[in-house]
This record gives sequence, C-alpha cells and structure tokens, in this order.
Amino acid sequence: MPSRRLTVEIINVGNELLDGRTLNTNLQWLCGRLSALGFIVKRAVIVRDDITDISASIREAIRRKPRWLIISGGLGPTHDDKTLEGVAKAVGKKLKVSDEALELIREHYERMVEKGLIERVELTSARIKMATIPQGARPLRNNVGTAPGVLLRKAGVKIVCLPGVPSELQDIFNNELYPLLLTESRGRKFITKRITVRGVLESSLSPLIDEAMKRFRGVYIKSNPRGFEGGESVIDLDFIVGVSGDDKRAEQLISEAESFLLERLSYGGKTNEGDQPQRHGK
Amino acid sequence: MPSRRLTVEIINVGNELLDGRTLNTNLQWLCGRLSALGFIVKRAVIVRDDITDISASIREAIRRKPRWLIISGGLGPTHDDKTLEGVAKAVGKKLKVSDEALELIREHYERMVEKGLIERVELTSARIKMATIPQGARPLRNNVGTAPGVLLRKAGVKIVCLPGVPSELQDIFNNELYPLLLTESRGRKFITKRITVRGVLESSLSPLIDEAMKRFRGVYIKSNPRGFEGGESVIDLDFIVGVSGDDKRAEQLISEAESFLLERLSYGGKTNEGDQPQRHGK
Repeated sequence: MPSRRLTVEIINVGNELLDGRTLNTNLQWLCGRLSALGFIVKRAVIVRDDITDISASIREAIRRKPRWLIISGGLGPTHDDKTLEGVAKAVGKKLKVSDEALELIREHYERMVEKGLIERVELTSARIKMATIPQGARPLRNNVGTAPGVLLRKAGVKIVCLPGVPSELQDIFNNELYPLLLTESRGRKFITKRITVRGVLESSLSPLIDEAMKRFRGVYIKSNPRGFEGGESVIDLDFIVGVSGDDKRAEQLISEAESFLLERLSYGGKTNEGDQPQRHGK
Repeated sequence: MPSRRLTVEIINVGNELLDGRTLNTNLQWLCGRLSALGFIVKRAVIVRDDITDISASIREAIRRKPRWLIISGGLGPTHDDKTLEGVAKAVGKKLKVSDEALELIREHYERMVEKGLIERVELTSARIKMATIPQGARPLRNNVGTAPGVLLRKAGVKIVCLPGVPSELQDIFNNELYPLLLTESRGRKFITKRITVRGVLESSLSPLIDEAMKRFRGVYIKSNPRGFEGGESVIDLDFIVGVSGDDKRAEQLISEAESFLLERLSYGGKTNEGDQPQRHGK
C-alpha cells in the first residue's frame, strides 16, 4: 500500500464524458503527470453535470482520505457548469464572489483588450459566475482561458478544481499545482536536469513531452517558456525523476528521455547542455 | 431524471488506466453504444487491480441501484486479473469452475487447433482460472479472445463483466449483451433499417461505424457479418433509432447516418437498399 501522503483521487465532471461524445484524455494526462511525481491515483470517478451527483462523489472521495482530490470540468460561465455548486454543497461552504478571482478574470480580459481582441473589459454576470467560488477557497491563475482553478481544503484533503478544456487544465496544473505537488513530495529525493531548447514553439514541443513522459514513466518533464529572445522561442525544460536509492538509474532515465525528446524534435541546433543532473532532497 | 430502468453504471478495472499508460477508450465506446440505445450512463468509476477497491466500488454501485452495472478489465489468466474475485466478494458468492465457461474456453482452443495455430487443447491452470466465475453467474461467449464475459444479478442490478481488450469487449457487447439491452428497452419504440454491405471487411467498417455513431447520436448501428459469399465479405448493417413520438425524425436520422457511412466508405457498389425502415414496439 502506498503511504496516504501520496494518494490522489480524480473526479471528471461532464455529461459529454458519459454519453460517448468525448474521450476522456484529461484523465490519462493527469494520471501520467501525477505518477511521474510519485503519486498513486487510487480512483477516478466520472459524473454528470448534476449537483447531487457531483457533491456525493466528492463526499465519498473525502471519506476515503486521499491526500489530493483533483476535480476537472464544469467551471465555465454557463448554467450547466455546476462543479463549484457541487463542491460548496459537499464541503458545507457558501459560494461567494472572490475579489482575487475577479481580479484574475479582469486581468484576462485586459490582456484581450491589449491584444485588440475585444474593446473593453465588461464583467458580465456570466463572467462574475466564474469568480464565484466556495468561501475560503483560493483561485488559481489560468493563463489560457478565463475560468480560474480553485483550491481548498476539507478534512485534511486538498481539493483542486480545474477547467475541463485540456489546454486550460494543463496550464493550471503545470504552473499552479505542480510546485505544490513537488513540495508535498518532500522526503522523496529527486534528480533534475535542465536543458534549454531554442527555436521551437511550446505548442510543437508539448505533444512530444507527452509522448516522452508516456514512454519513460517516472520522468516528469516540465516546460518553462522564457518567451522570445532575438526572435526565437526559448524554453527551459526540466527533467525530474524521483529516486529511491539508485541515483545512477535515475540519471540514466533522464538521459534516455532527453535523447528521445531531442531526436523526435529532429533537433538541428542549439541546446544549452548546461547543467549536470542535480540531486535534491535527502 | 431518467427512469431507473434505463440507468447504467460502469466500472473500469486496471492500474494502466490510472498511471497514464492507457487511454480509456472502452468507456467512450460503451457510453456511445449505451446512449444510442436510450440508456443513461450515470457514473463511471476507474479502480486499480485491487480486490478491496474493486469490491468496494461494486458494492457502492449496487447501492445506487442502476439497472445495469458493466465492469471491464481484469478477466485474464494472470494473477493481477482480480475482477471476478472482487465481484464474488461484493455479491457474497463463492468462485467456482463453471462447466459452461470451461466449454467456451475449450471451444476457443479447438478453433485454434483447427486453424493450425496450436497443436492440441490443453486446459492449464491459467486457462481454468478464466472459467472460474461467481456461483450462479452465466458465462458470455467471446469470439475474439479466450476469457468469457460473465453475467450475474444482485439486488435487482444486472452485472456484466467484460474483458479489457477492446476487440473482445466489443465482441461480447455486440453479440451477447446487445440483445439483452434491446429487450430491456421494450416499451420504447425503435425504428430500424437493414442494409447489406459487400466487399468490405468488418475491420475496415468498424471504425466508420464508430465515427457515424459519434456523429449521429441516438443512432445505434449493429454489424452482423455473414461471412464470405462468392469470395466477398458480406455484412448486414442494422440502423436502430429509439423514438419518442416522431417517426419521421427517426427515419431522417437513419437516412443521414446511412448516407454518411456509405460516403465515408467511398462506396462504389453493391448495397441491398432492401428494407423500408420498420417500426417496432408500441
């Protein structure tokens, strides 16, 4: 049995996942990321857009006391986005407009104004709905879409809600959740290596990262885009492997995943081979 | 709320579904088929290869009283195939070698002998394990692989176990389960139309059927291979649409799905346009 500290349960919300319309790729993506960080996904539950079903599945999960409960889907602006109502009901909190969440949403629309995509920021009631989260919860920045993620805690279980749109789910996971999960794993040792890739867009890199992580299980690959330098996209890639004793095996795994990735990139040119693998933790 | 009569829950068993290795395509496939027959999939649960987790998830599902509980995965010959142990524990039955299941497995290996793939039928302990099912359960023929499906009943819930290999799951669903589900739906009206497709292998047709069913939700398409006639593969295709009043709309839907399918087949030649759509039920 894994220690409770590293257990996770997942709840995916959405009628489209239960009527054949949509293949649940979010579950596989989350499971791959979590496994590479040493977490054990104990159970996943898929429920419909129904407040009673959502809150029941959350209550049941909390009773099993996983360290983390990750919920995806149903955070959007429309009436059938009911996840946060379900969460509020399950944890016994009221829903309230969060100033911090509203600020994140305002910033999102301000960026759209700057890009000339819309004329001005209007906080319509549909948009305010996305800032309406359970009392005491913390919003998580969404760099890709509008709806912030939500983080809260109940009975020792950390609950995080992510949007169902894969690019938004992945953005919040990588930028907001990943640092927290890595901290949780303290006590585990990690070997890391950073390389820098130039001249490749993150959107081209990201499916290759997925492929490498699926092939080299146990390797977590985090991309940190640095933006454009001299007209070129620059991305730092961190390879992270949890180790339980054998550093050499971990370094080997990183080196294999790195070679695989660079080969699949048909990489002509410039990486900063940079760092030797570094060891963290005890 | 749907009437209880048409509710289904699904449990997918397998570590590979929770560690990022495998995308759960079985769930989408099952949900598409069930929805087209008018069933509502209320919940899906994915658990690891662990007897306690499997039996707990089954007990919880039975308590919610769906009409059907469909379980996939973990029916194979190896030690980590634990689904039937979990089922037996959940329903309070002993596991027992079923003569009927053993006969299905013997027939499977006899077919392999006929094809010259193996020399003789040997019922090893691994093979006998696949015939070891909960007392009172009925085995379901598997035309593609070895492990039979299993059908049983507990507290008014019909429980069916299918192998996790997609081609085997689909074979047992289409040939053994589908007729039962259609009977369950009596009281609903169905419009059906049969066409015959010649010169196309079922393996080529089957992804197109999946595509058509995804695009035209509500249309169930069942393929009935008739084997080879005059050196040509012959397949009868039944288009089935449940109707709640408007026959015209159902006929329209069938005709759209049929056109779509034939077009995607880039069909040069021969269909038996045959039947007018027929109405069944009340």
